[in-house]
Amino acid sequence: MPHSGQLGDVSPQRMAFAQPLRLRSGLELRDYEMVYETYGELNAARSNAVLVCHALNASHHVAGTYAGQDKSEGWWDNLIGPGKPLDTSKFFVIGINNLGSCFGSTGPRDINPATNKVYGADFPVVTVQDWVDAQARVLDELGITQLAAVLGGSLGGMQALDWALRYPERLRHCIAIATAPALSAQNIAFNEVARRAIITDPDFHGGHYAEHGAIPKRGLRVARMIGHITYLSDDAMEQKFGREMRAAELGYTTQDIEFQIESYLRHQGDKFSDYFDANTYLLITRALDYFDPAREFGGDLSRAFASARCKFLLASFTTDWRFSPARSREIVKALLDNKLDVSYAEIDAPHGHDAFLLEDPRYHGVLRAYFTRIAGEAA
Amino acid sequence: MPHSGQLGDVSPQRMAFAQPLRLRSGLELRDYEMVYETYGELNAARSNAVLVCHALNASHHVAGTYAGQDKSEGWWDNLIGPGKPLDTSKFFVIGINNLGSCFGSTGPRDINPATNKVYGADFPVVTVQDWVDAQARVLDELGITQLAAVLGGSLGGMQALDWALRYPERLRHCIAIATAPALSAQNIAFNEVARRAIITDPDFHGGHYAEHGAIPKRGLRVARMIGHITYLSDDAMEQKFGREMRAAELGYTTQDIEFQIESYLRHQGDKFSDYFDANTYLLITRALDYFDPAREFGGDLSRAFASARCKFLLASFTTDWRFSPARSREIVKALLDNKLDVSYAEIDAPHGHDAFLLEDPRYHGVLRAYFTRIAGEAA
Repeated sequence: MPHSGQLGDVSPQRMAFAQPLRLRSGLELRDYEMVYETYGELNAARSNAVLVCHALNASHHVAGTYAGQDKSEGWWDNLIGPGKPLDTSKFFVIGINNLGSCFGSTGPRDINPATNKVYGADFPVVTVQDWVDAQARVLDELGITQLAAVLGGSLGGMQALDWALRYPERLRHCIAIATAPALSAQNIAFNEVARRAIITDPDFHGGHYAEHGAIPKRGLRVARMIGHITYLSDDAMEQKFGREMRAAELGYTTQDIEFQIESYLRHQGDKFSDYFDANTYLLITRALDYFDPAREFGGDLSRAFASARCKFLLASFTTDWRFSPARSREIVKALLDNKLDVSYAEIDAPHGHDAFLLEDPRYHGVLRAYFTRIAGEAA
Repeated sequence: MPHSGQLGDVSPQRMAFAQPLRLRSGLELRDYEMVYETYGELNAARSNAVLVCHALNASHHVAGTYAGQDKSEGWWDNLIGPGKPLDTSKFFVIGINNLGSCFGSTGPRDINPATNKVYGADFPVVTVQDWVDAQARVLDELGITQLAAVLGGSLGGMQALDWALRYPERLRHCIAIATAPALSAQNIAFNEVARRAIITDPDFHGGHYAEHGAIPKRGLRVARMIGHITYLSDDAMEQKFGREMRAAELGYTTQDIEFQIESYLRHQGDKFSDYFDANTYLLITRALDYFDPAREFGGDLSRAFASARCKFLLASFTTDWRFSPARSREIVKALLDNKLDVSYAEIDAPHGHDAFLLEDPRYHGVLRAYFTRIAGEAA
């Protein structure tokens, strides 16, 4: 028996699609599969479903554990479960792994039916819109016409926004946390450096490293280290590591570790390079770069949101310098310009962008209150 | 004839040292050479000398041009010359290339007298203090007992502070711009990612790439790209590049350039990898990491500055997130705790850390006024 408040063990499910998916690039993805998980029960009216969209290093495994696996909690397990802010005794929660991922849904590590070889760099470039279209098809198969809410943080928040823009009748609430209406030049710059580290790794082989029995681990390590710096606030890093040395005396070395922050970053890079796929990293960072709903409207975000019909909750964190509160406020302004129902919480949290994944009482309080409101509304 | 306000052509000079230099690491550097330039005239009292200390990608070539070379202006030529804020008709200005550099003074590309092979990774780790000690020897040879001022920005500012702490009788003014009393965890983290990109480049060969006829250009490119992001403010990057695309239509590519910011960063990385030495990059970033005058005083910066006797000008820039104004204010507080004479200017400039190299009228106005004050004081 799972503890009260815990989902207990969960299992991923798989759905195959014979109908090709037309992508934004003009290409089609054939014979693809989507992996997903669900928690809680879909009610008779099919009106209590909440879709949770994932960000870069995450998947369909949003909550619960895998039987017999230690530390297998889903990436948002602190938020989702019976009695938790997103209460699975009230809501039917769905996590879907995005196309191009390395965690189950069809991606660059899979076989390209056109060549019978691993896709590698030939996997088509996917966008936030493509992901949302693919998610919509999964929901069609599950018989869910309208979602109570779509919820996501960071890149997941962009997917939630895209749902609101392009499938306005299919959701009642959009909850977008620590996100932005489009990457800034600095955001793109960090993505590009990470990509160059991967692409210029001699083990990358133009993205066809699988054929060469190689893995561009050096590039993945550097990419992950860069990412980690941008996920944490300057202050959080200072609190956690400061200038703490590994040894009492300086070692006068440029190649060995002197400071604990170096040790931490190298460890994060090593772990990541053991499991993450390099082509997936390129695809996901590019999907981030491309997301820009205002682009089709001459840069006018308010016009972009004219199609939205649902209610919105936006949340940001004061120390998030990757997607700062100012970026969320741009979205809030565009929503208000359209006289939409919008709640906005700017949460004073020290952890930087990572805060959206952490259990901060004020943050979770905001989400709990909002989901209580949703649960109380008639569908 | 040079234009009024311009120094015209200048020439580097070279000074050899037979006496070994004892380094902070305990090692000694033997038979080394220092390259330097001077502008203006040393007065009869030998009291008008100003030492300019350089940062990461700079050298002794601070101002003026090289005969017959286009675009050969020194890196701080906008500040230094006849009639400029640091007026060479009043001051004798000295630029010295630091040890470990790849621009002239003895460094990793030179021959190790102990092995008769290129130093490479065997060049000893040098610190800000070692640089200052080596600069002091050059001044001894030039017959300069006391400097009117030591001036530096960023890492150059750290050298100016170290002069004030350890050679208190040898300078009357310390001018430290856009600097910090020690790197933060985030600063060290960026340095470490850049170093890992270089060290894990297969062409690095443990730092002995010269013996292998190789250059770790991939690593140098990534290191420079990371550096550039931290030199510019988020806003400056947004103003200059924003989300500007290279082509009118999206190319749906992860490996080719889509955004102008990508093109800019790649270009900066390419240029840098053509001339900068990888071992020098490691040495200089490590010298930055190690600088921490408070360390010997239990982390108490005020106690560290108890030895200082000179007057101080500190300046910082509002959009500098690498060495933010808060870091300069830490120094100002420590100086005031010691009842030292300190002026501080926090300049509202949009350019981020790079602002210290640019010609901002308010910034240059502050420096002009301060040097006018110095020129008016009796030595």
